[in-house]
Amino acid sequence: MRVRGDVAYDGAPFHGFAVNEGVPTVAGLLNGALSRVLRSDVAVTCAGRTDRGVHAVGQVVSFDLPDDVDLSRGLESVRHAVNRQVGPSVVVTGLSVVDDGFDARFSATGRTYRYRILDRPDGDPFTATRAWHVPEALDVAAMEAAASLLVGQHDFSSFCRRPLPRPDGTEASLVRRVTGASFRRVADGLSGVELLEFEVSASAFCHQMVRSIVGTLVAVGRGRMEASSMPDVLAARDRHAAGEPAPSHGLTFWSVDYP
Amino acid sequence: MRVRGDVAYDGAPFHGFAVNEGVPTVAGLLNGALSRVLRSDVAVTCAGRTDRGVHAVGQVVSFDLPDDVDLSRGLESVRHAVNRQVGPSVVVTGLSVVDDGFDARFSATGRTYRYRILDRPDGDPFTATRAWHVPEALDVAAMEAAASLLVGQHDFSSFCRRPLPRPDGTEASLVRRVTGASFRRVADGLSGVELLEFEVSASAFCHQMVRSIVGTLVAVGRGRMEASSMPDVLAARDRHAAGEPAPSHGLTFWSVDYP
Repeated sequence: MRVRGDVAYDGAPFHGFAVNEGVPTVAGLLNGALSRVLRSDVAVTCAGRTDRGVHAVGQVVSFDLPDDVDLSRGLESVRHAVNRQVGPSVVVTGLSVVDDGFDARFSATGRTYRYRILDRPDGDPFTATRAWHVPEALDVAAMEAAASLLVGQHDFSSFCRRPLPRPDGTEASLVRRVTGASFRRVADGLSGVELLEFEVSASAFCHQMVRSIVGTLVAVGRGRMEASSMPDVLAARDRHAAGEPAPSHGLTFWSVDYP
Repeated sequence: MRVRGDVAYDGAPFHGFAVNEGVPTVAGLLNGALSRVLRSDVAVTCAGRTDRGVHAVGQVVSFDLPDDVDLSRGLESVRHAVNRQVGPSVVVTGLSVVDDGFDARFSATGRTYRYRILDRPDGDPFTATRAWHVPEALDVAAMEAAASLLVGQHDFSSFCRRPLPRPDGTEASLVRRVTGASFRRVADGLSGVELLEFEVSASAFCHQMVRSIVGTLVAVGRGRMEASSMPDVLAARDRHAAGEPAPSHGLTFWSVDYP
């Protein structure tokens, strides 16, 4: 039996999503709680492995259960029991039985991330673990122009950590299709602080791609790079051509699309 | 020379505002940083001493400086130097020289607090330290009706921790004028979560008054008390007549009025 879980988490207390023995991880916490509640060994697969400090509002996981697992209490009661164990940093927002062919990672056709920037001289206590504080004024129009040049299908080698070669020695492709990349102003309704929010959607992202894109766009906003240089940065297929990755704590994995 | 400071802070890491040797407090941190930057012993007075875990967006402090303190760099540069020492949990949002008669506490003519409640079955990782999670459905109309009965000048003994007797043996008055008390829905723009927000304004508040009012209103929302009983609760002048104080982490000191 295949189960889908929808999960939100504050990334601050975790060393990333993926299980890493000896340190707290989102998958480690989820696997433990699901296994205890369901009395069956559970190992989740996720739509996007987030790095240390990265948050999620709409992460999706999938896992298998033996057909003889007792679900007579219903999945909602399983969900509440799991949430009592993983909260408040993690919350399972949905749990449902899905088709055997569903895989949180391989079935996904699109992913969306949001990155928050506090672009004012003063810091803010309430968004300190959720937004990157950039004290300088940023040229947002230039950042928007640069972002629009990244939309489309490109080789994003300049914006990604190079993956390990495959077992057969070939290199994984870093070609990705970015379907949207734009900025808007959002208010933190609880403190009244206004932030600059970048939203980017793609078929899939390679490792550190969003943070490298944001770091590059902020370099443009600071006047250190030209917006019009984006095609050259892409063509270089060299990480040194792009800006430094933005810090992880500004990044939130927002949503996943499935057919 | 009298100086006014406007201060925001996340209450989570602090044992309240007031100096308390051996534990981290907002005033302890501010006094230390201001004294180091200004090379003069500074001890701040505040508009409202917040308890452990209570946040502030618009706290106001005042303090004295000897006339020979070197302010040639300007107060803005003092402010930035202090913020480098007290951030990210505390930020001084303003610093200005004021009339000698100004006192952050005694000059204040009104104070406003906001209290956030997450009223849904699921928790939320991003507001866990800023909103009280009440999993049950609440009767908000009844809570509004009860809140409106608290507006006006009343003896709030039923909603306050009894203060120590004055040195002359008399008891301090717990009569306060509540000028507004209402609910609205607010969204946390960063996670999309919707919260129930209570805003209450008064000439001044006695100790634990907002938290006791919120605890009582939530008891009404849960159907454990009648909205129409508020006049009796006030008349009892007994804390047992009111609900248990709501937890401190949902409370934010929002703003202070001066003539």
